[in-house]
Amino acid sequence: MTEPDGATEPERAVPESRGVSRRGLLGLLGAGAAGAAAGFAGGAATAGVALTAGTHGGGSAGASVFPFYGAHQAGITTPAQDRLHFAVFDPDAGLDREGLIGLLTDWTAAAARLSQGLEVAEGGAVGGSDYAPPADTGEALGLPASGLTITFGFGPELFETADGGDPFGLAARRPSELVALPRFQGDALEPARTGGALCIQACADDPQVAVHAIRNLSRIAFGRATLRWSQLGFGRTSSTSTAQTTPRNLFGFKDGTANIKAEEPGVADEHVWVQPGDEPAWLADGSYLVARRIRMVIENWDRVQLGEQEQLVGRSKGEGAPLSGGTEFTEPDFEASGATGTPLIDPASHVRLAHPTMNGGARLLRRGYNFVDGNDALGRLDAGLFFLSFQRSPEQFVRVQTSLAADGLNEYLKHVGSAIFAVPGGVAEGEFVGQRLFD
Amino acid sequence: MTEPDGATEPERAVPESRGVSRRGLLGLLGAGAAGAAAGFAGGAATAGVALTAGTHGGGSAGASVFPFYGAHQAGITTPAQDRLHFAVFDPDAGLDREGLIGLLTDWTAAAARLSQGLEVAEGGAVGGSDYAPPADTGEALGLPASGLTITFGFGPELFETADGGDPFGLAARRPSELVALPRFQGDALEPARTGGALCIQACADDPQVAVHAIRNLSRIAFGRATLRWSQLGFGRTSSTSTAQTTPRNLFGFKDGTANIKAEEPGVADEHVWVQPGDEPAWLADGSYLVARRIRMVIENWDRVQLGEQEQLVGRSKGEGAPLSGGTEFTEPDFEASGATGTPLIDPASHVRLAHPTMNGGARLLRRGYNFVDGNDALGRLDAGLFFLSFQRSPEQFVRVQTSLAADGLNEYLKHVGSAIFAVPGGVAEGEFVGQRLFD
Repeated sequence: MTEPDGATEPERAVPESRGVSRRGLLGLLGAGAAGAAAGFAGGAATAGVALTAGTHGGGSAGASVFPFYGAHQAGITTPAQDRLHFAVFDPDAGLDREGLIGLLTDWTAAAARLSQGLEVAEGGAVGGSDYAPPADTGEALGLPASGLTITFGFGPELFETADGGDPFGLAARRPSELVALPRFQGDALEPARTGGALCIQACADDPQVAVHAIRNLSRIAFGRATLRWSQLGFGRTSSTSTAQTTPRNLFGFKDGTANIKAEEPGVADEHVWVQPGDEPAWLADGSYLVARRIRMVIENWDRVQLGEQEQLVGRSKGEGAPLSGGTEFTEPDFEASGATGTPLIDPASHVRLAHPTMNGGARLLRRGYNFVDGNDALGRLDAGLFFLSFQRSPEQFVRVQTSLAADGLNEYLKHVGSAIFAVPGGVAEGEFVGQRLFD
Repeated sequence: MTEPDGATEPERAVPESRGVSRRGLLGLLGAGAAGAAAGFAGGAATAGVALTAGTHGGGSAGASVFPFYGAHQAGITTPAQDRLHFAVFDPDAGLDREGLIGLLTDWTAAAARLSQGLEVAEGGAVGGSDYAPPADTGEALGLPASGLTITFGFGPELFETADGGDPFGLAARRPSELVALPRFQGDALEPARTGGALCIQACADDPQVAVHAIRNLSRIAFGRATLRWSQLGFGRTSSTSTAQTTPRNLFGFKDGTANIKAEEPGVADEHVWVQPGDEPAWLADGSYLVARRIRMVIENWDRVQLGEQEQLVGRSKGEGAPLSGGTEFTEPDFEASGATGTPLIDPASHVRLAHPTMNGGARLLRRGYNFVDGNDALGRLDAGLFFLSFQRSPEQFVRVQTSLAADGLNEYLKHVGSAIFAVPGGVAEGEFVGQRLFD
């Protein structure tokens, strides 16, 4: 995936041209299927960035298959899939360095298979012994890979436990920037949705496929690590490819118009990927992931007049154009003013405060999802944005979030969960994810 | 939708051949769009049952549009869409009969528009005054109708409040069968997920479209009715059309193989639709809806050996064939025994206990969804089946559920929520949903 000149290409989708699915592979399990899987995994990609429009068998969307192995982990610059299951784990008491390496090795093997549309292990849900639990939980049998990517990250607590312990001998290798995020204006963090030692981001175009991945990886961790918190997202709120349309968040506005796109490899190197000269060396080609559960008070927002909604955001609601004029992708002009001399884009608007020019050039690769988790006791939907961003340094996020302290939108949202992870670089065949951390 | 001989056709999908979407309509709002909407709503269906495989614009699945008006409400025999948002409301104190009629009238008008891919009202999210809140919350702008159906139901509490009141003058018109379900073996019902006076089932192939519908209908109810509980489902667990493949539940098994299908209108008349001679007359062409939130203890299930899993279900895990032999749609043979004389299908298996022959011929039209709502404090996924079934009489469900008291699967599940609703018949243009209840 890395060109000789160091430029990085976005992950590419392999059209599932042979109609391979978990069902199709049921009859093939064994050497043949292993060969087919290696064929996919080994970089058989030949097409350009493909969205998940491929269908096969008439009706089943999401036939894309993304390579698991590569210079970077998939699921970052990969064109954002439609659905998310995100899970955070804590190591169980008694897990030691070898145990952790074992877990990461098992997770890697499973993720490599799952992302190719295979069952989690040979033997699968129906191919093993009648007298053993099935290797795979089975609910994705017959479903295509659906663009599944599985991305792993390491939280601060992997390097130092809450009581100052270092069970994995990793304290000296901790990235100096991998610390809990500072408290921001308006934070109302719930401990049950905050922090954690290990994370797995599963994105797919079929939620059943994403859920299946997290469930099976959780199961593999049994006795070694325990799920601490998790979050489903039903709709992507950002594009990470110029080939994707910009989706809408639950404020009803297009979100992520100015996001970093896979088609800008130079930009990704500058803003997303930890570079070879950066510290620590083991994190090169990786990134930092920030996760924030942002509850939106949508019932109140829905009573705000259109003009004020647009003023708070700084863009029009329909087109998503900056209020300084043009269309969605026109660069906002923060100097433009109307007939009365008032700036067309309010100085306290979200688009201005989040803009790189206000944040020392900081840009984020956003990859968040809308969520609705039922409702609260007052009959308000428990809805909002599960914000995910990848950046070369956590400082980028801190700058933007600090700037947003003045954001008028804060009246309509509340950050209730927060976590940060170091996302190691990609995996080569025969390695486990994050292996360089342990070298 | 009703043929002269009384036979009922399934709802039909209208391919969105003109590529109409909320985005497309932004430029059309006004008389032209209203005309287009009426064209869809007026029964322009000409195709047979179509699944939601239609794509337009390259990549956007779910372009189906189902008629809102008809002899029956949509969302029952409609081919089950992929995603669900289900919501239950209680009337606010002070709502009277006229207020309730007003709410149902407003809900009907909104649902008729939303199901056709229109914004909830003219003016929409961006077409109204800058100085008023937008009529539509906007997050579905640009998305197609995505097969959205909106189905309304009336719970026992609409006819008699908890304190014996009758604020709507409906007590005398209450269906004698519309009472809270009896307590079943193993029930562990949570009050916050049980009961309610009004329900709305929103099904669509895009979860953002289903969420948008519930959100806007909740908003319309502000000051008149308040959301009591709600549930999202990410994956359908039943087919309601022979053209659909059978999906899998979170036990990893195909679910709903023997479900009532839209292509069996005689069966639907016998088992799903309240018939003209049934009591009460106002409910003719309607149905009864049972909703059960069934939590699955999937971590324990995943440790059960394959042979035992299959014995408990009575079907093979891969193919879904009855253990008496054949393929998925082979009728199970409960008399067949193996070499040792043991029945091939265990007498306590789910397939046998749920089978019509064990329940006086009772059949249900199942329309449930898989859910995962994060995890509990012990690190177990809060996962399971949000069971929905439609039947001509609640007695059908009671029989089957009573029979399932002996089901070995009960070790791995727990019913934590329950509700029942009378679902009125379909709506003609100019009527509001359930109007005959008030005549």
